[in-house]
Amino acid sequence: MSIVMYERVGFEGRRPSPFSWRTRLALAHKEIPVEFVPVRFADEGTIVKLSDQRFVPIVVDGDRVISDSWNIAVYLEATYPARPSLFGGSGGEKVSRLVNIWSDTSLHPPLRRIMFADFLWCLDPGDRAYFRKSREAEFGMSLEEACSSPGKWLELFEGACAPLEKTLGEQAFLGGESPLYSDYVVFSVFQWARLGCPTEVVRSGSALWRWRERMLSLFNGVADAFPGYPKEKTGTDGR
Amino acid sequence: MSIVMYERVGFEGRRPSPFSWRTRLALAHKEIPVEFVPVRFADEGTIVKLSDQRFVPIVVDGDRVISDSWNIAVYLEATYPARPSLFGGSGGEKVSRLVNIWSDTSLHPPLRRIMFADFLWCLDPGDRAYFRKSREAEFGMSLEEACSSPGKWLELFEGACAPLEKTLGEQAFLGGESPLYSDYVVFSVFQWARLGCPTEVVRSGSALWRWRERMLSLFNGVADAFPGYPKEKTGTDGR
Repeated sequence: MSIVMYERVGFEGRRPSPFSWRTRLALAHKEIPVEFVPVRFADEGTIVKLSDQRFVPIVVDGDRVISDSWNIAVYLEATYPARPSLFGGSGGEKVSRLVNIWSDTSLHPPLRRIMFADFLWCLDPGDRAYFRKSREAEFGMSLEEACSSPGKWLELFEGACAPLEKTLGEQAFLGGESPLYSDYVVFSVFQWARLGCPTEVVRSGSALWRWRERMLSLFNGVADAFPGYPKEKTGTDGR
Repeated sequence: MSIVMYERVGFEGRRPSPFSWRTRLALAHKEIPVEFVPVRFADEGTIVKLSDQRFVPIVVDGDRVISDSWNIAVYLEATYPARPSLFGGSGGEKVSRLVNIWSDTSLHPPLRRIMFADFLWCLDPGDRAYFRKSREAEFGMSLEEACSSPGKWLELFEGACAPLEKTLGEQAFLGGESPLYSDYVVFSVFQWARLGCPTEVVRSGSALWRWRERMLSLFNGVADAFPGYPKEKTGTDGR
């Protein structure tokens, strides 16, 4: 028996969703066999029917259905304690929750303002109108307007990354000598940027850059196993 | 035999230094008997002679001298593994390093711009000229100029605290059901503000407020065992 994971899929097999990457890497870390089911934004009906909520990733383990990447990580740790630990102990799990929330609330917002106008082109053409409409409603402006000052947001993003740069100058991974779930949470942000826009958001040669290289080499390079940012803008822009 | 801790002392026995609070609470958590030696900024000669560097806290354990609050926490955990854990496992220790660096780099800077002109009055009058001169050199302006827009910095500080508010809405402590070293690091910031300036930086009734109340009640209320912010400005302003 293996676990089934529903994960977001984009244009021509791309996997640019940060939340799905956290779970993909957590499952690889736990060495759990997985059957992946790619889902589009348009598959919302299927997702709601399965899990009673709208978001992926979702993990199905026998008769249990778990949604939300954090809940999934906690579930995997509790259910498979004999497999490699995602948190390195109870303290690691609790403190990682702050890291998870910090990453979501401090790193995501500036990155959205750098990448969302570009990100559209990573999505299946059939998902673009939904993405544009929902994100433009959040921003209160068009994606192109929201992303019209990338330099300002890149500076804010780099400022928010300062604690990472300093920590990773001292230790190879946030988890120490090897990665833990905190690394997967934070890496998912950089994976999102790397696959979802043409802008490089990490300074070459920085501690963060070297850590990202280490993360990319994990689990037979799974983080590099899907197509990168599209070379050409193809199909509708969702308007 | 007990450990000796050198900690910063201010005006009439006050203890407003955040770094010393981290170590004081870590030692209480480890249930280690401590002999406290209060030191002033003016005691730099003694400190350098003891530890070959300029800062407190310093811990002396037999013939070992350890400086830097983070190093002290790691030392205590490694040296006294049978006593209550400060990190809740190896993962907790590593991930707490990011929390420590995040706290220092994201919470301290805006708080300095709220409180430093007031903070002067918590210091021994003989330390004020040193404090003013060194901090004004860092800011490139007078303490009064640096702290002339408290509203702007309070807004930035509250923004930086958003991940704490959300996390502490979910769990009683950053360490889970009971506090860990991450709690002491972050609490030291609020203790600094609470004892070091008259401005309230936490919204009444927030999760952060309730957590601070819990922290204040730990270890027989040690965090409330010293005088609070002075009611009157007494003595020189260090100019």
